[in-house]
Amino acid sequence: MNYSLYTDLYELTMAQGYFLAGREKEEAVFDYFFRKLPFEGGYVIFAGLETLLDILESYKFGRKEIAYLKRLGFKKEFLEFLANFRFNGNVFSVKEGEVVFQNEPIVRIEGSLIETQLIETLLLNVLNFQSLVATKAARICSAAGDKAVLDFGMRRAQGLGAVWASRAAVIGGVKATSNVFAAKEFGLTPSGTMAHSWIQSFGDELTAFRKYAEIYPDNAVLLLDTYNTLGSGLPNAIKVAKELEAKGKRLLGVRLDSGDFAYLSREVRAKLHNSGLDYVKIAVSNQIDEYIIKSLEEQSAAIDIYGVGTKLAAAKPDGALDGVYKLSEIAGKPTMKFSENIAKTTLPGRKEIRRYFSEDGYFYGDAVTLADEKTITKYYHPHFPEKFKVVKGLSFENLLSLVFSKGKNTLSRRSIPEIADYAKSRVNLLPSEVRRFDFPHVYKVGVSKRIITLRGSLFVGNKWRNSSSRELLDKK
Amino acid sequence: MNYSLYTDLYELTMAQGYFLAGREKEEAVFDYFFRKLPFEGGYVIFAGLETLLDILESYKFGRKEIAYLKRLGFKKEFLEFLANFRFNGNVFSVKEGEVVFQNEPIVRIEGSLIETQLIETLLLNVLNFQSLVATKAARICSAAGDKAVLDFGMRRAQGLGAVWASRAAVIGGVKATSNVFAAKEFGLTPSGTMAHSWIQSFGDELTAFRKYAEIYPDNAVLLLDTYNTLGSGLPNAIKVAKELEAKGKRLLGVRLDSGDFAYLSREVRAKLHNSGLDYVKIAVSNQIDEYIIKSLEEQSAAIDIYGVGTKLAAAKPDGALDGVYKLSEIAGKPTMKFSENIAKTTLPGRKEIRRYFSEDGYFYGDAVTLADEKTITKYYHPHFPEKFKVVKGLSFENLLSLVFSKGKNTLSRRSIPEIADYAKSRVNLLPSEVRRFDFPHVYKVGVSKRIITLRGSLFVGNKWRNSSSRELLDKK
Repeated sequence: MNYSLYTDLYELTMAQGYFLAGREKEEAVFDYFFRKLPFEGGYVIFAGLETLLDILESYKFGRKEIAYLKRLGFKKEFLEFLANFRFNGNVFSVKEGEVVFQNEPIVRIEGSLIETQLIETLLLNVLNFQSLVATKAARICSAAGDKAVLDFGMRRAQGLGAVWASRAAVIGGVKATSNVFAAKEFGLTPSGTMAHSWIQSFGDELTAFRKYAEIYPDNAVLLLDTYNTLGSGLPNAIKVAKELEAKGKRLLGVRLDSGDFAYLSREVRAKLHNSGLDYVKIAVSNQIDEYIIKSLEEQSAAIDIYGVGTKLAAAKPDGALDGVYKLSEIAGKPTMKFSENIAKTTLPGRKEIRRYFSEDGYFYGDAVTLADEKTITKYYHPHFPEKFKVVKGLSFENLLSLVFSKGKNTLSRRSIPEIADYAKSRVNLLPSEVRRFDFPHVYKVGVSKRIITLRGSLFVGNKWRNSSSRELLDKK
Repeated sequence: MNYSLYTDLYELTMAQGYFLAGREKEEAVFDYFFRKLPFEGGYVIFAGLETLLDILESYKFGRKEIAYLKRLGFKKEFLEFLANFRFNGNVFSVKEGEVVFQNEPIVRIEGSLIETQLIETLLLNVLNFQSLVATKAARICSAAGDKAVLDFGMRRAQGLGAVWASRAAVIGGVKATSNVFAAKEFGLTPSGTMAHSWIQSFGDELTAFRKYAEIYPDNAVLLLDTYNTLGSGLPNAIKVAKELEAKGKRLLGVRLDSGDFAYLSREVRAKLHNSGLDYVKIAVSNQIDEYIIKSLEEQSAAIDIYGVGTKLAAAKPDGALDGVYKLSEIAGKPTMKFSENIAKTTLPGRKEIRRYFSEDGYFYGDAVTLADEKTITKYYHPHFPEKFKVVKGLSFENLLSLVFSKGKNTLSRRSIPEIADYAKSRVNLLPSEVRRFDFPHVYKVGVSKRIITLRGSLFVGNKWRNSSSRELLDKK
């Protein structure tokens, strides 16, 4: 797939505009950040970075793409420029799998105005969605505790969104996925056994179970609810498990796909126990999310594996992370977007995220500073500077590092399970009240004094950034 | 992209199971249907058919795919079978763009058990999502009446879900999309002009507007809210519009991206009017959906164009259509999935949808019949047969037709705008109370007497379909 046209049209009309205005050498800096934590949770797991960098490295307008843009009326000289275009900028980013928060510049892109503008839509599309799903998965897996969670969402995913959804789900803690394409592409563990149609196709449930166990003696998970879970599915499964035992094999598991899982799982567990089949795992699937898992765990349901589909893959109920990409420096000068809505005013300049640790080793809070700032002793609420945190003497990490340098991907590769482990280790460094499932405590993200001062100077010096329009209005 | 592994793993484990059980010649029939109408609306626009058939036509396991399955432990003889596998089945479907309802077999797949099983996940992934987005778009466009709706959702779409989202959005009535990739791929109209960064990058808003209008004199839409919509953006836009007029050109439009659109649009319209600029279109964007459009239209907001993003592309709030794919015939014999939840019991046999028209020409109701049924005079509620509709003498259409025959795509191609026109014409044949925005009247879908009889005979003859398991339970 060629990603060069995987963009909103306006990135191209603006790029041509910059080009025709003779600004193709001008330098710019953009920040990627989001404004609102999804799922009413306390954090986001940042995901999608490696996907994005891989695409940036091979970003190239092919002949077909150029021909299409020609048909749309783009100008010859700009198309010649595009034909030779490669993304040669720098990307500074937090690590994939990092725990991140609202209003901090998770990714900073530096390069020519044209190249940094052109990749906006692509970057947003990749990072918004993967971070959203990784976060949803982390919530679900956190509710499931030490029980395994599997991704069964492909059939209800948003079309080709399935590809990255499964990748992000594993980063968030899911152990395996039904999605074979994503498993192959990203080195994930694929998982899956049988549907109701398998059983229907044999007519007789016991025959269907037997046949499956004969072909897959080491990893059969029998689906119990095609006809009647406790009346038919379970006794047939027990029969087949005993037959497997006679061959020195063990039935891996049974799956419940309808009914009341608290009740059914306990009934199934008790009957398996009575038959000496304590080793048989019980999996459930059907409209599972973190709230249902939490309720089932509180009821001590006898469940070993949660199969999660729609609500994970489509990241319900939020469906989207509101990440944005905003210009923070142009031709070496800091810039910002003003807004009548103060919360939408952006932070100017080339910035860094500094994460402070409290003395017990947990994350204390994040300060957004200018990239070249030295030690700071306090950081401030972005809009109410009378609110501040003292960080004097606290240890910290700078979260941004150079992962793409002058067009070269310099990211140290990790496997998806490694990224998942990293994500888990970082979530575990959050204070428990921020990790909390419902109504989490707000993790404090603020800004340095130099950013406040810089923003103030841009406000004061630039009443609407345009005195001529002000005069025009006053004349009316 | 090779779609052969674009599937849940269990389709492959089952396919291998059927193959090793010597059932590769056995015939099967599956139905695609959904159970619940999304968005609390009265109908679904069926979309995704052409995408699906194109994929089925080129469906082939390549070397890399086979090698991957080998690594997963699939058996040599099955992999040899897969290496030569093509989908040679038949597909009967309603037309893309058709208005469809819950519990009717929108698509019927006939072929070998293996081939019909293998494509399940793919089919669900394509049809569920495109139908969902087309339906959301139809609702949004219906709220917008004769105002144009544009798709701006790519940056918030669910990753690669963006590709089909824009296709489906146009089927549902959207006029153009920001998504260049989808526009090229599916012949859609791309749309887009400038972001806030364009204006910020020039520092001065008036210069930014002027430069844009100079480069794009025929289709400039100026974004008003970078600094202050009424104080700066609008007066600058008016100035530039007048400068364009002096060159014999016309400013195409202005865009509002924040603030109260009812208030702002009227202010903007009034000031444009005072400047003799009634021809300048007013576009709005930012968290728009059908409810916001309805409210703005009720307030007589002065809006010509709605740009809709997140809520369309991610199909909020539902995020997924619950379409399923169920076995209805095996080796020439009707079959069904039983369920303790009666509403989840499926309809057996090879079926057709018969759409009846009332005498005034509107859709009256849909009967699901067996494919070979002759005239029926009544149709029945699927679970309460005492409720029925008399259709004697009413004209009808059979909705299913053969669109893929023995492996060949036989669909008559239409452009996406043609499919969109068809969708609109079909929505217009719905009684107004079914089309209604809120709390629509339920369109009546029922079944023929022969289906009820067939289902009854399968129930009676097959207590849990398995007497041996019953005996096992009784012995306990």
